[in-house]
Amino acid sequence: METITVALGDRSYPIHIGGGSIGEGALYGARAKQLLVVTNDVVAPLYLDAVRGALGPRDVEVLVLPDGEREKTLATFARILDRLVDARFHRDCCLVALGGGVVGDVTGFAAASFQRGVDFVQVPTTLLAQVDSSVGGKTAVNHPRAKNMIGAFHQPIAVIADTATLRTLPPRELAAGLAEVIKYGVIVDAEFFSWLEANVAKLRALDAQALTYAIRRSCEIKAAIVAEDEREHGRRALLNLGHTFGHALESIGAYERWLHGEAVSLGIMLAARTSAALGWIGDEDCERIEALLERAGLPVTAGDTVDPDLVLEHMQIDKKADKVGLKLILLDGIGSAVVTRAPERVVLRSVLGARLASP
Amino acid sequence: METITVALGDRSYPIHIGGGSIGEGALYGARAKQLLVVTNDVVAPLYLDAVRGALGPRDVEVLVLPDGEREKTLATFARILDRLVDARFHRDCCLVALGGGVVGDVTGFAAASFQRGVDFVQVPTTLLAQVDSSVGGKTAVNHPRAKNMIGAFHQPIAVIADTATLRTLPPRELAAGLAEVIKYGVIVDAEFFSWLEANVAKLRALDAQALTYAIRRSCEIKAAIVAEDEREHGRRALLNLGHTFGHALESIGAYERWLHGEAVSLGIMLAARTSAALGWIGDEDCERIEALLERAGLPVTAGDTVDPDLVLEHMQIDKKADKVGLKLILLDGIGSAVVTRAPERVVLRSVLGARLASP
Repeated sequence: METITVALGDRSYPIHIGGGSIGEGALYGARAKQLLVVTNDVVAPLYLDAVRGALGPRDVEVLVLPDGEREKTLATFARILDRLVDARFHRDCCLVALGGGVVGDVTGFAAASFQRGVDFVQVPTTLLAQVDSSVGGKTAVNHPRAKNMIGAFHQPIAVIADTATLRTLPPRELAAGLAEVIKYGVIVDAEFFSWLEANVAKLRALDAQALTYAIRRSCEIKAAIVAEDEREHGRRALLNLGHTFGHALESIGAYERWLHGEAVSLGIMLAARTSAALGWIGDEDCERIEALLERAGLPVTAGDTVDPDLVLEHMQIDKKADKVGLKLILLDGIGSAVVTRAPERVVLRSVLGARLASP
Repeated sequence: METITVALGDRSYPIHIGGGSIGEGALYGARAKQLLVVTNDVVAPLYLDAVRGALGPRDVEVLVLPDGEREKTLATFARILDRLVDARFHRDCCLVALGGGVVGDVTGFAAASFQRGVDFVQVPTTLLAQVDSSVGGKTAVNHPRAKNMIGAFHQPIAVIADTATLRTLPPRELAAGLAEVIKYGVIVDAEFFSWLEANVAKLRALDAQALTYAIRRSCEIKAAIVAEDEREHGRRALLNLGHTFGHALESIGAYERWLHGEAVSLGIMLAARTSAALGWIGDEDCERIEALLERAGLPVTAGDTVDPDLVLEHMQIDKKADKVGLKLILLDGIGSAVVTRAPERVVLRSVLGARLASP
């Protein structure tokens, strides 16, 4: 097992990466006597017993949510808080989020808000959550008209990324997680990008060593950026590569047509193609990125045509917009992303029109 | 006008105290172009025009809530967020809370949560809000079964306490605010307590100079404690003198029988009498405190008998309880409060039985 640290002063915390870590009680780092495990009905039958076993004979409550992004709402947030009040949990309790990004985000926001903030531990069981959403303290629920619009910055006290849980993950979800892994290479680490080109098949085949390396490197990159800019006043925005486009597509697809990672894959493709349209990178860079995404099992075309104006409309209410106009993350090379003001609408519309048309 | 500062590093902010300050646009300190003023249907007819005038020709939205503590809910929180999304507000927007503690607390929590945190300005129009709830960054809504159970620490960018707004405040609410003013003297400042004994009549008569001094001194004391312990890991808990008892009484009275400040007045009386029962202070200290509360127009008896066991039951789920047992703020003198483990149940029950019986 490997452990890395997110360095945030008195809010620093460890990320434990390795097979079987979910069953090791010491890793949870929780001194609390009252714990609430929040999970979903897909993950609970697989891993809840292991987590309960690790937590031992403490006061452990369990809340099992239905699986899916549609649970990431204020109503689910309220349901978690109801349970905490009903069970008479105190300020020194601890929440444990066992599952993917939805469980982690809504549980984290409940932990941020219950009594103005209590401890929580992230136990991510999807690749996407292990390399991205469980690390860095962003918590949120969706507003009916805008993703992740309501939330808090609230760091967990520990992250336990058990690579063995990825064996039960559907291949489509594994691929979705690889979108974020590839993102880290594209934004700041050309060497990692090359490593991924050489090892993507091993990752899809669940090679334990390759997975541990990819997760560790992803978390290291994210942890370093978060340590530098916890509240996204600057550099942290790089982590949003592909996400402004991606959130618009997810919203248009009613959060059903594409998984988050699939929408991010399309978003990375669109960010690269926009960068190329501005002359910042060459077409061959776009093709290299698209080839890696495809080999990871991810979409780089939309299937049916998506209306570019609809995408642009959705991008305006994305939360990365500010008064000086929409900001985007674009590339001036593989391994070199920049936060920039969005280009002219006509440029974006042309890229969207060309790349989101049915083949 | 007087200005004091809450010293919290890069989250420091000014409190402006004085007559007419509500109309001075420069005090709002908001660089935002998009503003949402949240207020209620009692305050809006009195002061909304002055605030709109001060904010000038920017993009100003207004949300008018019904008046009252029963609006301090997740539903109202969601209503504010709906308006922000509908109006396509960006991350650099600013909320303005114009009203009493309810408006300030729910607006502050919405500001803390919208896009994981945007600016807000407190414009408190009650004495209670001017000396207490608008300062220090505690925001919250009530859970149906527990007050202030859901919220965040989120500091405003400015507080504008216009003493002229107190002229339209019902005398009962002015008295409720004096409960918190008296609290500051009782916990840390015997000299201020003596000043209040000499000047309470002037305060009730709305003497401008006396009000400005009392508000300034209250805010200075609160600001100093908050600067030392923003997230209430220690000393900040002193500000809760009377509040654990008070919250239990408010809950038993369905938030209708007593105003918050009235419940705090009873709570201060109960904390003093508990301290006396333990031999920490003398009966004459209790009598001095009760005399000042009464001269301020506040209750020191419950009227109808309140069941002591019901109060104790409600105190158990109060959020100041932790695993080592309930904590209370008690006194070892006027101007000298301490955070301590609650005494034996039998002691509390005896004080509650004696002091909450009908006369």
